[in-house]
Amino acid sequence: MIIDCHGHYTTAPGQHDLWRKSQLAAFREGRPSPGYPAISDDEIRESIEQNQLRLLRERGADMTIFSPRASAMAHHEGDEGVSGQWARACNDLIARVVGLFPETFIGVCQLPQSPGADLTASVAELERCVQMGFAGCNLNPDPSGGRWTAPPLTDRYWYPIFEKMAELDVPAMVHVSSSCNPVFHATGAHYINADTTAFMQFIAGDLFADFPELRLVIPHGGGAVPYHWGRYRGLADMLGKPPLGEHVMRNVFFDTCVYHQPGIDLLVEVIDVGNILFGSEMVGAVRGIDPETGHYFDDTKRYIDKLGLSEADAAKVFEGNARRVYPRLDQALRARGR
Amino acid sequence: MIIDCHGHYTTAPGQHDLWRKSQLAAFREGRPSPGYPAISDDEIRESIEQNQLRLLRERGADMTIFSPRASAMAHHEGDEGVSGQWARACNDLIARVVGLFPETFIGVCQLPQSPGADLTASVAELERCVQMGFAGCNLNPDPSGGRWTAPPLTDRYWYPIFEKMAELDVPAMVHVSSSCNPVFHATGAHYINADTTAFMQFIAGDLFADFPELRLVIPHGGGAVPYHWGRYRGLADMLGKPPLGEHVMRNVFFDTCVYHQPGIDLLVEVIDVGNILFGSEMVGAVRGIDPETGHYFDDTKRYIDKLGLSEADAAKVFEGNARRVYPRLDQALRARGR
Repeated sequence: MIIDCHGHYTTAPGQHDLWRKSQLAAFREGRPSPGYPAISDDEIRESIEQNQLRLLRERGADMTIFSPRASAMAHHEGDEGVSGQWARACNDLIARVVGLFPETFIGVCQLPQSPGADLTASVAELERCVQMGFAGCNLNPDPSGGRWTAPPLTDRYWYPIFEKMAELDVPAMVHVSSSCNPVFHATGAHYINADTTAFMQFIAGDLFADFPELRLVIPHGGGAVPYHWGRYRGLADMLGKPPLGEHVMRNVFFDTCVYHQPGIDLLVEVIDVGNILFGSEMVGAVRGIDPETGHYFDDTKRYIDKLGLSEADAAKVFEGNARRVYPRLDQALRARGR
Repeated sequence: MIIDCHGHYTTAPGQHDLWRKSQLAAFREGRPSPGYPAISDDEIRESIEQNQLRLLRERGADMTIFSPRASAMAHHEGDEGVSGQWARACNDLIARVVGLFPETFIGVCQLPQSPGADLTASVAELERCVQMGFAGCNLNPDPSGGRWTAPPLTDRYWYPIFEKMAELDVPAMVHVSSSCNPVFHATGAHYINADTTAFMQFIAGDLFADFPELRLVIPHGGGAVPYHWGRYRGLADMLGKPPLGEHVMRNVFFDTCVYHQPGIDLLVEVIDVGNILFGSEMVGAVRGIDPETGHYFDDTKRYIDKLGLSEADAAKVFEGNARRVYPRLDQALRARGR
């Protein structure tokens, strides 16, 4: 079975995004938020069947770990109340997708983070979503949207959410949202920078001594990390830390959202297959067809298929690691005899 | 001949760094800066012979394009006047190194950038340094040191320095300094993020339409870019830009500061050898010996030697590209019959 660990609902019905716009307009004008619009099951079905489900089938995958559109989380907009409403609306929509396509999707939630706010609301929303059957969350290391005003992920500021994740046995994908800083293109710089930044924070800190069971997925193939693996091994050494395999890689996983063959080749060459989860971020950041291959850039399964992995290793990347990192997904699958 | 395009004077005599400390202390206390200390030729000679020169010889390279310590530029400290004094002191020290070892070093200057200040002082300092025989400059895309308050490099804010670079026919290496933002480890996150960020700015903008002859070196192997080359090709396409080879890669070059073999393999696989300049950033960010190889992480010549490049391609990476990107280096070498 083939599980894509990284999919966002980028194709949600238009009313959902329109509501967000009117919610933010109301906030700016000091008015109460408008009521959330009616969206029919058929509209949701259509938005999924014509996009994620179609592509999943065409590409030969079975399931997606599915979360709200990352670039639209925009925790820097509005205030904590606005982020709370928006996160609930987005997560409830994911729950409806999962309800309509339970064989194909399992939910990962957006958190109601907000610059300067503590994580109380995020802890509560994570708990609510896990009760709805979600298997994890997306944690934004920069709720300021490119201003980078929050402390490093190893700071105690973040501990309440890590404690709740440990208690619920769910992982987080470390995933920023859009950037309000014009220097950072969202999907071309901010996303990749955040991945790199988070990994280096884990090296410099000692988070996993406090949370030995914590599991964090760094998306987009780990940002720049695998390409600079020698630099990170060397920096860990210079900082007097244990080797990365002990210090970080018991807790940190990378997805395969790397959109060309040489990148995937490198990823699998330097990172243990036990730390790699198949992912495509489809339908996502890069939607075109690569003129050099004639296939979608984000059809990452093709690159992995070309690696010539052993059957056991391929099973880890495509299924086993995801079931291990997201145990609630594993439980849900087992309950269905899969 | 083997030219290392990326070396910093990280081993300057202690008085130099002590002066910087007292300069900043004086600024904070509203006192005038102290006088710059006497540093003898012998002290400079020793600091170079025991470090860069020794390692250059041990590793089999001939020359280094040499600039002040990047992490110490710290444009976010003090004000424009402080940055001006500091840049002149650092550049004058580089000029002395070059004067003592003219066969081995050629200068690249630090600019007196300062958050919020325009580039008038930087233009003047570049001109002064080129008159002293320097071949280029280091341009900091984030003089705020991790707060990222300057506009993108494609913004007209930067045009005065690009105009002066074009007039003087010198390139810039895009190189940030230390980070005062605790989320960004300097050499593990801020450096690499800046490289990635700058490249994406060049894709999203149209800088090289205005400056067709401008040459910019993105260090540290281009940040995350080669690893995510498919993403960048795809994003250029989505943004309606020409292919990267036309749109960016006539003007942008990557060094080889990637500290393991698989990273260098990938770099040379995806990036045209005409765009790759040998560099090590020695003595720099990662100073240890890789336990997996028994050699220094930053002995990047070893990785390149193992690529099996043709003689013509190796000559480009080790010498020809550097002479083309830094024409004043080429002129200086020719004047010496090299």
